[in-house]
Amino acid sequence: MLKHLLSGADLDAATATLILDTAGEMARLAGREVKKLPALRGRTVVNLFYEDSTRTRISFEAAAKRLSADVINFSAKGSSVSKGESLKDTALTLQAMGADAVVIRHPASGAPHTLANWVDGSVLNAGDGTHEHPTQALLDAYTMRSRLGRVAGLSVAVVGDVLHSRVARSNVLLLATLGAKVTLVGPPTLIPVDIGTALAPGTEVSYDLDAVLPTSDVVMMLRVQRERMADSYFPSAREYARRYGLDGPRMRRLPDHAIVMHPGPMNRGMEIAPEVADSPRSTIVEQVTNGVSVRMAVLYLLLGGMNR
Amino acid sequence: MLKHLLSGADLDAATATLILDTAGEMARLAGREVKKLPALRGRTVVNLFYEDSTRTRISFEAAAKRLSADVINFSAKGSSVSKGESLKDTALTLQAMGADAVVIRHPASGAPHTLANWVDGSVLNAGDGTHEHPTQALLDAYTMRSRLGRVAGLSVAVVGDVLHSRVARSNVLLLATLGAKVTLVGPPTLIPVDIGTALAPGTEVSYDLDAVLPTSDVVMMLRVQRERMADSYFPSAREYARRYGLDGPRMRRLPDHAIVMHPGPMNRGMEIAPEVADSPRSTIVEQVTNGVSVRMAVLYLLLGGMNR
Amino acid sequence: MLKHLLSGADLDAATATLILDTAGEMARLAGREVKKLPALRGRTVVNLFYEDSTRTRISFEAAAKRLSADVINFSAKGSSVSKGESLKDTALTLQAMGADAVVIRHPASGAPHTLANWVDGSVLNAGDGTHEHPTQALLDAYTMRSRLGRVAGLSVAVVGDVLHSRVARSNVLLLATLGAKVTLVGPPTLIPVDIGTALAPGTEVSYDLDAVLPTSDVVMMLRVQRERMADSYFPSAREYARRYGLDGPRMRRLPDHAIVMHPGPMNRGMEIAPEVADSPRSTIVEQVTNGVSVRMAVLYLLLGGMNR
Repeated sequence: MLKHLLSGADLDAATATLILDTAGEMARLAGREVKKLPALRGRTVVNLFYEDSTRTRISFEAAAKRLSADVINFSAKGSSVSKGESLKDTALTLQAMGADAVVIRHPASGAPHTLANWVDGSVLNAGDGTHEHPTQALLDAYTMRSRLGRVAGLSVAVVGDVLHSRVARSNVLLLATLGAKVTLVGPPTLIPVDIGTALAPGTEVSYDLDAVLPTSDVVMMLRVQRERMADSYFPSAREYARRYGLDGPRMRRLPDHAIVMHPGPMNRGMEIAPEVADSPRSTIVEQVTNGVSVRMAVLYLLLGGMNR
Repeated sequence: MLKHLLSGADLDAATATLILDTAGEMARLAGREVKKLPALRGRTVVNLFYEDSTRTRISFEAAAKRLSADVINFSAKGSSVSKGESLKDTALTLQAMGADAVVIRHPASGAPHTLANWVDGSVLNAGDGTHEHPTQALLDAYTMRSRLGRVAGLSVAVVGDVLHSRVARSNVLLLATLGAKVTLVGPPTLIPVDIGTALAPGTEVSYDLDAVLPTSDVVMMLRVQRERMADSYFPSAREYARRYGLDGPRMRRLPDHAIVMHPGPMNRGMEIAPEVADSPRSTIVEQVTNGVSVRMAVLYLLLGGMNR
Repeated sequence: MLKHLLSGADLDAATATLILDTAGEMARLAGREVKKLPALRGRTVVNLFYEDSTRTRISFEAAAKRLSADVINFSAKGSSVSKGESLKDTALTLQAMGADAVVIRHPASGAPHTLANWVDGSVLNAGDGTHEHPTQALLDAYTMRSRLGRVAGLSVAVVGDVLHSRVARSNVLLLATLGAKVTLVGPPTLIPVDIGTALAPGTEVSYDLDAVLPTSDVVMMLRVQRERMADSYFPSAREYARRYGLDGPRMRRLPDHAIVMHPGPMNRGMEIAPEVADSPRSTIVEQVTNGVSVRMAVLYLLLGGMNR
């Protein structure tokens, strides 16, 4: 098994499948009201968050607590922490305190890789800059498998600001490993022509969402990050929504079995219409639920569970 | 039993009495050094606080932990959370993660009711705008019963800025249900003449504190919320304290057995003199202690304890 | 045993030695993968932090959780809390809620002493203004004993801004009690000539670091607190580093067995060169590790462990 989970590229097909299977087992136990497992009793998981993230932090915290680990939250957004304490010194502290796992979110791409050099415990990347977010990719794959029965062979359209999306990046890597066919869709300024193949051979690019929808099994809408949408990228929010937002009529171009995913939080009315977000095709709520199961599985497997 | 606790009006006399009796049992166990009960092991309680509140958050957290629940704190004051994540999306997240109870404090009146439509778990209103704060009313009733032996038949004066007070509102509702006689006291600008009867028939209104004191069993001083005390309401803080503050001489107008309550935090020297706050009549410290027992009882009963 | 731990002066030699021995036992158990002890199950430890402190807060939180206590974090930096809630009211809240121990960090020297008058539980000073930080002194003594076999008879140089350092103050007090010889070293503006003897008879003062090093067993470098380094104290940061910073050549003036300590976080390149911080003489990482063991020991002994 892996020591760390830093990138979607860390996972070969066997390991990714083991994680998904284990997550399925976690979900099965939770469904039978076995809500607390003793697997990580006495282990300490530190949530080291240099950026706010309600959803991801809570998801990891819930996952660790269901496995009976002790959780220590350390929120250090912005400059308050950098004042006098570098990431290296923080790492030494966590290392010295015997943290068994460090879940890190950081605005700088690559920070989790650097941290992994400094600590003995496992490092889990919970989002680093515009780089990667591998547990998101795992919960997305879990959701596809649970809804559509498989990942291999699926046609997945990833739509939006791919350039700045760690969710897209981790998904492209993991989906290629699991045998899905990915098409990146969005305006040319946000999808450099070689971005897909640089990540995984076979990844396709399209600038025409309407053309891609009829052959997609999965449409994954990315969150529009307004703060990154400078005027140079695109004429206007309204124009963006018109061209790349998923509204009702556009959703009806999908095959009957196709699903709509979104990593949340959504900009309702921007990249996704309320009608779509709340439709039966939408897996948005399941993705959150699956996130806890998948993070339980990752923590369990990385930390060696009871057999370590 | 109830599913949610959103308003003092949710509680009929039998349910309120069951909560008070259960809180008494919790206090009895704590007094015998049984500080940790297994009743909610494996359950997850989320503290969802959109406003700062040291006292209430810690009280709920302590109550949940004594029942062996896992507690996840989510502090989201002001605009940081609204940026991109609506209450609805947050609710979906909590719902999807399987939170068994959500304790919510929110600046908008009615937010807990809205939340209750979106989640399967129990919702506990820990204060919403100027609307309600039902566990405060329960701990106040518990304190009256513990000091004076009963609630029914007591004369309770609620003094101060009733207009903006969620504490007053929940107390009027619950005290009426339990058979106490409530008189609202304060300046006319802060006590619209029909506010009492709109909440509960039989509620009286007075603008003269000195006249009310000699026949009161309980005086509940409300916190002056300076930020809401515009000049239009009252000439000055000093004038307010002179007319409606409870100082030593005024306290001595009370019957010998009468008690003085305050939900805290106090403005010493404003609505309550230090001499009064620290006198044996004052129940302020007991109210805090009782708050933990009452919240344990509410969590225990709403979540079904061990028998669910 | 003590009720509170407020100052290095609270500890006589026997008590300090008991704490160090108990910490050794805690470390031994952790080394044998006994990471969770049931000693404080059902007890509640409140971390009451009026100043940010990653390292100290996490260290106390980890220590309490390893002893199976429930931990409630209460972060109240700056003015947000003082708005309407004094330390006294907060103390009454914690008291009423039955906190078994309150770990307090506060910008005002003496705040922990005041708090101890208001609560029944144990108060642990985790740093008050420029006054004291006794658990830091204990973990430093533990580290000396573990590296050099003893504390009595050691020559310890404490270097830097002694005037504003609570770490220095607590160390001088405890090291005198344990029989070490302390020399305070730094610029005259930061080491008033009588500061040492005012704390403990026999404490020496020097303004010449190079002269002190060859006879030191331990060099404890204090963190430069830039915000306190007004121009009046010292010409410039560069000049400070040149005169009182510990770099490689200066480190080589130490006896072969001597160790270099720092309470963290370090200003690398200011009071300590990276070459020194990362050398085998440096105990900086061990100090952090030892901090958890020492805080476990203090909590265990103050709260009476299982035998209370």
